[in-house]
Amino acid sequence: MMKTLEVDLGNRSYPIYIGADLIDQPDLFKACEKASSIFVVTNTTVAPLYAQRLNKTLETFGKKVRAIVLPDGESYKDWKNLQLIFDDLLKFGADRQTMLVALGGGVIGDMTGFAAASFMRGVRFIQVPTTLLAQVDSSVGGKTGINHPLGKNMIGAFHQPVAVIADLNTLKTLPARELSAGLAEVVKHGAIADAKFLDWIEANAKPLLACDTDAMSHAVLRSCEIKSAVVSADEREGGIRATLNFGHTFGHAIEAGMGYGEWLHGEAVGCGMVLGADLSCRLNYITKAEADRLTKIIQSMNLPIAPPKFGGKRYLELMQVDKKTESGQIRYVVLEKIGKAQIQGVPDAQVLETLTATGAA
Amino acid sequence: MMKTLEVDLGNRSYPIYIGADLIDQPDLFKACEKASSIFVVTNTTVAPLYAQRLNKTLETFGKKVRAIVLPDGESYKDWKNLQLIFDDLLKFGADRQTMLVALGGGVIGDMTGFAAASFMRGVRFIQVPTTLLAQVDSSVGGKTGINHPLGKNMIGAFHQPVAVIADLNTLKTLPARELSAGLAEVVKHGAIADAKFLDWIEANAKPLLACDTDAMSHAVLRSCEIKSAVVSADEREGGIRATLNFGHTFGHAIEAGMGYGEWLHGEAVGCGMVLGADLSCRLNYITKAEADRLTKIIQSMNLPIAPPKFGGKRYLELMQVDKKTESGQIRYVVLEKIGKAQIQGVPDAQVLETLTATGAA
Repeated sequence: MMKTLEVDLGNRSYPIYIGADLIDQPDLFKACEKASSIFVVTNTTVAPLYAQRLNKTLETFGKKVRAIVLPDGESYKDWKNLQLIFDDLLKFGADRQTMLVALGGGVIGDMTGFAAASFMRGVRFIQVPTTLLAQVDSSVGGKTGINHPLGKNMIGAFHQPVAVIADLNTLKTLPARELSAGLAEVVKHGAIADAKFLDWIEANAKPLLACDTDAMSHAVLRSCEIKSAVVSADEREGGIRATLNFGHTFGHAIEAGMGYGEWLHGEAVGCGMVLGADLSCRLNYITKAEADRLTKIIQSMNLPIAPPKFGGKRYLELMQVDKKTESGQIRYVVLEKIGKAQIQGVPDAQVLETLTATGAA
Repeated sequence: MMKTLEVDLGNRSYPIYIGADLIDQPDLFKACEKASSIFVVTNTTVAPLYAQRLNKTLETFGKKVRAIVLPDGESYKDWKNLQLIFDDLLKFGADRQTMLVALGGGVIGDMTGFAAASFMRGVRFIQVPTTLLAQVDSSVGGKTGINHPLGKNMIGAFHQPVAVIADLNTLKTLPARELSAGLAEVVKHGAIADAKFLDWIEANAKPLLACDTDAMSHAVLRSCEIKSAVVSADEREGGIRATLNFGHTFGHAIEAGMGYGEWLHGEAVGCGMVLGADLSCRLNYITKAEADRLTKIIQSMNLPIAPPKFGGKRYLELMQVDKKTESGQIRYVVLEKIGKAQIQGVPDAQVLETLTATGAA
């Protein structure tokens, strides 16, 4: 059974479709009817698995369809590879009515979205997320961008897709490690916004890790509901949207410190949430037992819970460049209670206590 | 006497200030009050002339002020130099509350604007255009971007400045060739939107070429009024805004064919208008006498009126990649009459007649 969710953003509203074998259904891609040409951006891992099927679906619109295949991995989320997209778009006659289709995980979605945002100052694009991380997080909300040697996602745009098509069957080919990384964001949605959903996640770790379609359908839908409600309320991250970054300030520091691509984004976020939970406890919001429970849930998803030992000073440095800083002050997302997050500055001394207690410093 | 014009774009509205010695007036930069830091982006030509004075003005806000100095010229409007802006922003602690200030001509304005649009997915910026072209055209309207080897302004964003500060005295240091290039856009505004303004321009070529402050003040104000009215009606160029591209489809072909930087943008646009006028005449809109009169006005501004002889096929190829094409069809801006433009497709055969008649083919 396909589920449909509408992200409410006025004249930039769009549907999210969640179900099995959706990439074979031309109906869902009907925004392509008005396109002059269609370019599918994908990577060397995903292309052999799904590009041909998607191509067949898109060819029903009678337009030129062309694939742009990039190398696979977070380390390729840079200008050089973005440029490859622009090169092909221009070489093969793309114009302002061209539709881009992102077929892949978060890296492909972010890069394709930024390419769509900036090619000829903006063309339309469709997200076809094939990883759990992308289905529950990065494909929804319109954040696009690339990394800079000095920081993750430092260059980008807010650019909403015209549709998100989450085919649950594409998750069956996902390596176990990437599935777990995606589950980190599912856990996050429960932790910051819905205590009951967190209970459900805790009780369903096994079917989720086994990629059971019913369990996954619920996890993806509820995650998209939570994320899209937050995005609708605060599209450009002036306020509440930043709560979605729970675990991300520490997580980005881990990713940057290790070198992008060593830890998966979801792994770093999972571990970042362990630190965030400890910090929330130290600020007297949640109890030690609640922080421990969250850590156990993260661990039950086969995610790392021990941060790399960079030392406190290095962590603070790495977090300083993270874009959630405001006038030089790092802003942390903390759990006021399970199911509710807030954003605040925290004295370095307290952050260092967390870094020390968790073995990061 | 300073003149103020408000560009009406809802919550993205902003003022344009036009007058002498405005870069010394902190009041006009008051949007910097809420900034965490200020980065002035300028080039090696403009920096020695005005950076110190602007710096003094900006330092009154008590924030860190830093200059980023790029090489001067259209050929540097590329990713590599945009990257230099990002590098410095990140090296020197810029964040989402940072204000960028573009001090220079169209290249600096376009690059700084695109840097502002995409740095951390969007920060604020102020335009301080120091060339006539930038004051009457590129600094107003929010179009930002960089060139791609296969086409001009192919990568960019719509991102409105928070203020435009047009200091007429900076025009006094402008080389005569650049002043003329700016006057091409002034002529364009008369041609597409205001027949009386075109009469005034025709009668005031001498004071304009002498950079007389009163004449220039009127030319800049009326140009900004015409442009901002069009932009307010059609911010993202769905329709009427494209009439501002009169002379640009041919002009971009000239620029691309010669190699960016050979002809100044305004020179190419001036010459492009000669071709556009010929085409408008061939389509039975304006008379031969009106087309000749427009050519004479362009010539009176010391602008080239003879296009480079690339041949018809090459012109059509070069124009095909221009982003005004729609589903492969090139869209031309033509003069319905003096003071009124419209956009339409034109059969290649008629375009080739114009190219042949003007010596381009």
